[in-house]
Amino acid sequence: MTRLCRTFQTAPAAVPKEDSAKYLKSGLTAEGFQSPDWLVPDIEDGTAPNMKAEAVENVADLVPEHAPDFGGEIWPRVEWSYADSGFRERGSDQIRTLVDEAGDHIDGVVVPKVGRLADVERALSAVADAEREFGHDDGSIGLSIIVETARAWSDLREIAMLGEDGRLTGLIFGPVDYTAELGGRAMDGERPRWDAMLEHLSNEASASDLVCVGGPFDRLFHERAGVTYFNAPGYADQVTYEAKIGIDGSWSLHPKQTVQANRIHMPTSEELERDVSKIERFNDAKAEGTGAVVLDGQMVDEATFKNFANTVEDVRAIDDAHPQQTSEFYDDELLERARELDVGFA
Amino acid sequence: MTRLCRTFQTAPAAVPKEDSAKYLKSGLTAEGFQSPDWLVPDIEDGTAPNMKAEAVENVADLVPEHAPDFGGEIWPRVEWSYADSGFRERGSDQIRTLVDEAGDHIDGVVVPKVGRLADVERALSAVADAEREFGHDDGSIGLSIIVETARAWSDLREIAMLGEDGRLTGLIFGPVDYTAELGGRAMDGERPRWDAMLEHLSNEASASDLVCVGGPFDRLFHERAGVTYFNAPGYADQVTYEAKIGIDGSWSLHPKQTVQANRIHMPTSEELERDVSKIERFNDAKAEGTGAVVLDGQMVDEATFKNFANTVEDVRAIDDAHPQQTSEFYDDELLERARELDVGFA
Amino acid sequence: MTRLCRTFQTAPAAVPKEDSAKYLKSGLTAEGFQSPDWLVPDIEDGTAPNMKAEAVENVADLVPEHAPDFGGEIWPRVEWSYADSGFRERGSDQIRTLVDEAGDHIDGVVVPKVGRLADVERALSAVADAEREFGHDDGSIGLSIIVETARAWSDLREIAMLGEDGRLTGLIFGPVDYTAELGGRAMDGERPRWDAMLEHLSNEASASDLVCVGGPFDRLFHERAGVTYFNAPGYADQVTYEAKIGIDGSWSLHPKQTVQANRIHMPTSEELERDVSKIERFNDAKAEGTGAVVLDGQMVDEATFKNFANTVEDVRAIDDAHPQQTSEFYDDELLERARELDVGFA
Repeated sequence: MTRLCRTFQTAPAAVPKEDSAKYLKSGLTAEGFQSPDWLVPDIEDGTAPNMKAEAVENVADLVPEHAPDFGGEIWPRVEWSYADSGFRERGSDQIRTLVDEAGDHIDGVVVPKVGRLADVERALSAVADAEREFGHDDGSIGLSIIVETARAWSDLREIAMLGEDGRLTGLIFGPVDYTAELGGRAMDGERPRWDAMLEHLSNEASASDLVCVGGPFDRLFHERAGVTYFNAPGYADQVTYEAKIGIDGSWSLHPKQTVQANRIHMPTSEELERDVSKIERFNDAKAEGTGAVVLDGQMVDEATFKNFANTVEDVRAIDDAHPQQTSEFYDDELLERARELDVGFA
Repeated sequence: MTRLCRTFQTAPAAVPKEDSAKYLKSGLTAEGFQSPDWLVPDIEDGTAPNMKAEAVENVADLVPEHAPDFGGEIWPRVEWSYADSGFRERGSDQIRTLVDEAGDHIDGVVVPKVGRLADVERALSAVADAEREFGHDDGSIGLSIIVETARAWSDLREIAMLGEDGRLTGLIFGPVDYTAELGGRAMDGERPRWDAMLEHLSNEASASDLVCVGGPFDRLFHERAGVTYFNAPGYADQVTYEAKIGIDGSWSLHPKQTVQANRIHMPTSEELERDVSKIERFNDAKAEGTGAVVLDGQMVDEATFKNFANTVEDVRAIDDAHPQQTSEFYDDELLERARELDVGFA
Repeated sequence: MTRLCRTFQTAPAAVPKEDSAKYLKSGLTAEGFQSPDWLVPDIEDGTAPNMKAEAVENVADLVPEHAPDFGGEIWPRVEWSYADSGFRERGSDQIRTLVDEAGDHIDGVVVPKVGRLADVERALSAVADAEREFGHDDGSIGLSIIVETARAWSDLREIAMLGEDGRLTGLIFGPVDYTAELGGRAMDGERPRWDAMLEHLSNEASASDLVCVGGPFDRLFHERAGVTYFNAPGYADQVTYEAKIGIDGSWSLHPKQTVQANRIHMPTSEELERDVSKIERFNDAKAEGTGAVVLDGQMVDEATFKNFANTVEDVRAIDDAHPQQTSEFYDDELLERARELDVGFA
């Protein structure tokens, strides 16, 4: 895990309610498992066209106030489009305003609808320009992008390699725009999951040490026999799939989804017990000088060992950032074993 | 949908029957849902080695005669092989003859078994040369390629980007040759579906505004208890899968398949009703100034909206080209709502 | 099939037993279906850190002694890491020793944990240097790599194209290290299968005429109701999947797996009978001059024909190398038909 991002929660930065910053405040003040690792105040698709200015203002006002007490990272999403310079100009202005008024309190900005490599380079320049103009350290404001156009996917390898310069931080899948662009059809009410693209995303993110995040799950509610209920199982299936293939975090549209994703992206107690125990037994076998041993029917060598160590290291990273979450989630004695274990192979 | 191509029907251009052009004529004169969007008179694999000359002659004779009354596009398939210059010479001669004798009536040629980028560039040159030699406008004769070699797949991104010059028009999957080249095995009688390759194809086609088409389904008939019947369900499954992931059209080997694919690549009445209704309700909500609303349990924003708009725009494109198909397929009142709807988001 | 490699069996080159070369000897002297097409004496992960020197010595001693009677190829695996120059120096030394002492008896070396293109070029140079230093013909010692890092996957197309120079021979998937590097999780005890990556591997290997091999299946044993048994079905499922998508061979960790993979990567009697019969019937139809015919409900043309011919050619290649295996596996009369058939299309 390059950088903790189990959850990427978008919150509309302005909504047509008495308090237009209702959802933004609620995200910034969430506690415990409801608090996302990355909060994304959304000035783009979540905010109505006629409320963009108010959305920027809400972020500029509230982020500096609440950021010092917020446990995660803050990444506002601005407008952009590879296909429309009007959007790019508005997005660049929004970036300038945010860096000017909240530059000490945001970790970076999220730019959607980027196209080929050259367009991502434009977005990087927009951030670098604002950073310099308002006197922030070089590289202090990050850029994460939504990968949701065919052009961005086509150039994904080259785009990810831009991460070597240090500003590009995260690759987030945007399946809704993507499906629209490819002309895919939700024939039975469900969009394709784009399995091949997700494996590709997970790979390129790892090859360039970037964070990667899955797409939003928008079928928030189900109705059956006249009763409407939160679609927890559907979201859990998606997050579990993402976790299996090494996608670091999941997109959340709702605090209830944040609770789910924060938990699913932590190793379960059973996984932690299993892998701690395997490392303990492996360390015993190692003392006897063998290179590969069989534990519970599985051949274990250095490579297998690394997977067990990953489990332990993930728990340690979450424990460092959110000790109240780990102490709620795991048995004390197990957490203690995970903390003290020797996870070096050689 | 870049360009209407729900169906890519190959018809052998010469067969050993009394009328060697039987299937070609039948394709050129098909009506209603039996008429493919693209008819592909096949001089390559569908025509026996000793009938190639007659096949070219049939196309040269019949296409000019029937094209004016044919509702779709006409794309003869010639011989070619990245691995064999003899095939390329024959293919280039076939292209010259077709452009000379039927250049005003064909939309382009289909070239199979292309290899890496440089080989596709050779095929583009062969078409450009013929076009110039016989006095056709630059770019008036298109090129579509069958992507069926490991080399073409390896270079797919770069090949698709050739589409920017305007002549390359379509990417068609060729799973049979492809499986043979990779050494894949139909162990239980079925070839792999190559899911990852198809997502990749759909993406690159969209990134370069090309048409993309799935591969032929050759298990035309099934036998059970001594009765042989047309394998409609098997083909429908494949076409449905292709439609879901944004493959524009499906390959047809038989008029019955053409009827199926033409229909499956039209939004169903339920899809159209669903998406028209969502746009209508969204437009009402928009009037109240909110950026994202929940409809039927689904969070809807600009990106989701685009998917609904796609459904409506697909129907409009088919309605423009084949009004008798849409009037047969949809309820009049629904079609009218689809025609009159405001599908602009902002 | 570029080169026969149904099985890639790793054998730890030194284990903490009275005879530290026990498994290596057993691999080198295996007979019949227990004998792998490629034997990989493993100096890397299968050998404990404190036994590396003894492992190299065992290979240097035993390979020259047993190679003349061994029916397959011999490819020792050395240490390496794109991320650690210490591993690369040890690996280069191991390559030098092996080429010096067993250079006439090994077909090449296997290098794990390679990174981007430039790192694979370093590995190629290490082999070329050793080859020259000890007076072997240029290109006589091959290189095969384990593709198990995100960086190697990211550069896979370019890496595979290095195969054109002749030394790079095989691409082998390493899913255990790979899953660890991507941060994937075996949430239910099983790692992801990485379907998209495997299709990509099969494609690039074919595009550059390289051998490709799937990853190890380490859930060797299952336990149920207190009884532990060899997990043959799990391995068979994996090998079957690999064979379907054109992966040439499977990784074996155990002689029992070698027997399974050697057999699964041979066409079954039913497949051979089916495809021999189709070719025979097709050849009859061809005599009547038709380009495409329907056999058993399947439309057959030149492309389909190639798939049938592949089956026959695979059997012929195995028959040439291991006639005792084919005569045990197939009915004599069927094998005779496969040997005598005309598999040329035109």
